[in-house]
Amino acid sequence: MSGSGWIAIAGLGPGSDAMVTPQVTEALAQATDVIGYIPYVARVAPRAGLTLHPSDNRVELDRAGHALQLAAAGRRVVIVSSGDPGVFAMAVALFEALDNGPPHWRDLRIDVLPGITAMLAASARAGAPLGHDFCAINLSDNLKPWDLIERRVRLAVEADFAIAFYNPRSKARPDGFAAILHLLREACDDDRPILFARAVSTPDETLHIVPLSQATPDMADMRTMVIVGSSRTRLIERTAGAILYTPRSAA
Amino acid sequence: MSGSGWIAIAGLGPGSDAMVTPQVTEALAQATDVIGYIPYVARVAPRAGLTLHPSDNRVELDRAGHALQLAAAGRRVVIVSSGDPGVFAMAVALFEALDNGPPHWRDLRIDVLPGITAMLAASARAGAPLGHDFCAINLSDNLKPWDLIERRVRLAVEADFAIAFYNPRSKARPDGFAAILHLLREACDDDRPILFARAVSTPDETLHIVPLSQATPDMADMRTMVIVGSSRTRLIERTAGAILYTPRSAA
Repeated sequence: MSGSGWIAIAGLGPGSDAMVTPQVTEALAQATDVIGYIPYVARVAPRAGLTLHPSDNRVELDRAGHALQLAAAGRRVVIVSSGDPGVFAMAVALFEALDNGPPHWRDLRIDVLPGITAMLAASARAGAPLGHDFCAINLSDNLKPWDLIERRVRLAVEADFAIAFYNPRSKARPDGFAAILHLLREACDDDRPILFARAVSTPDETLHIVPLSQATPDMADMRTMVIVGSSRTRLIERTAGAILYTPRSAA
Repeated sequence: MSGSGWIAIAGLGPGSDAMVTPQVTEALAQATDVIGYIPYVARVAPRAGLTLHPSDNRVELDRAGHALQLAAAGRRVVIVSSGDPGVFAMAVALFEALDNGPPHWRDLRIDVLPGITAMLAASARAGAPLGHDFCAINLSDNLKPWDLIERRVRLAVEADFAIAFYNPRSKARPDGFAAILHLLREACDDDRPILFARAVSTPDETLHIVPLSQATPDMADMRTMVIVGSSRTRLIERTAGAILYTPRSAA
């Protein structure tokens, strides 16, 4: 075991290289190994001395253990996430593996390098819907009971947060988001604005802002960020596209 | 009025240039005018052809109107915020001014360029306390009633969100954060971990993680990000400093 190994858990941002921070670029330049989900590793240019380890979805803990073993053997490992690694991404899986792994792993240097998370990229493209108090909820029920998700959404509406939904809908979970829209319709006015921001900053980017009454489940997939405005969120109509923002004043 | 003017509302991140995105750097290179709060404008290097317009705190709407006037006159204007401009920062003020200003302002090109917001920089330095569902609450009551803030904090605890507090305490508001700590003690266990992350990524950076029972109001000031864990948030003790993270599983 070498003392020179390290792990950086790095956020690549939403898609465009123009949103990758210099410290992430620098970590990738120093790495011997890059680990992550296939489409994120595909964003890293191959070069001599760098081993790419793309892996499938839903193997986060295996990936984390692999990274820790490589770093313990003296390798310089970057784990890549899209967005920010600390928001519904690889940082937590790494720390779960560390928490439950051999004690010598705790001597490793581990840095989390933040990135532009999906909700902030989506918010920026649409205006500033998260400009006032807000919350972020992962709609995947792989690791938490669905009841808890619905309970959190109800309390978030009661608190009048703007709400950012990560992982709103997938082929494996086609119905949950429909239930969330139903719940929102019971709790909010028909004209509450909802942003569907898909693949922000990539060539596939689309943005749609609709009132709650016109939102349908098929407007979201796994590449979509959904942001529900608070009761105060407003639209500014423009020829160049509407702007969605939440005023600072809550009175 | 020239058609070539534009406004970019840019996030400079928490302090280190290593966290400024390339698109923000590029916008600053193309700007004729930079507008913002004095310490943020001070982060932009002077150069020929660039006019810096530093202004005092709490003049957000004046600053926004000034930016819109300059852009309408054909200037290329960057409004700088620390962190992310869409999170308790200048993007909302700009859109408030646009919403209430002359119609021709709506023809201007306006881009929001996201940045690494304080809570994500703080979370990354401490581990991944925001790795599960979370909310962000601004504790300044300049523009909202204090009752609403307390109500939101109570509902956030009930939803078992991790909670990021922006602007926890200032000289003008010395007592609010003490009231929040009191409220948290009524609702949470004594050992609920709280992160106080001050001036992250700057030479003044300090990090403290304490149990709720040991948290005191003077641990926070206006440069401090406060993150309260959820009921699931855990500590990993290490020689190199404890890691704070919130597991993905909520069961």
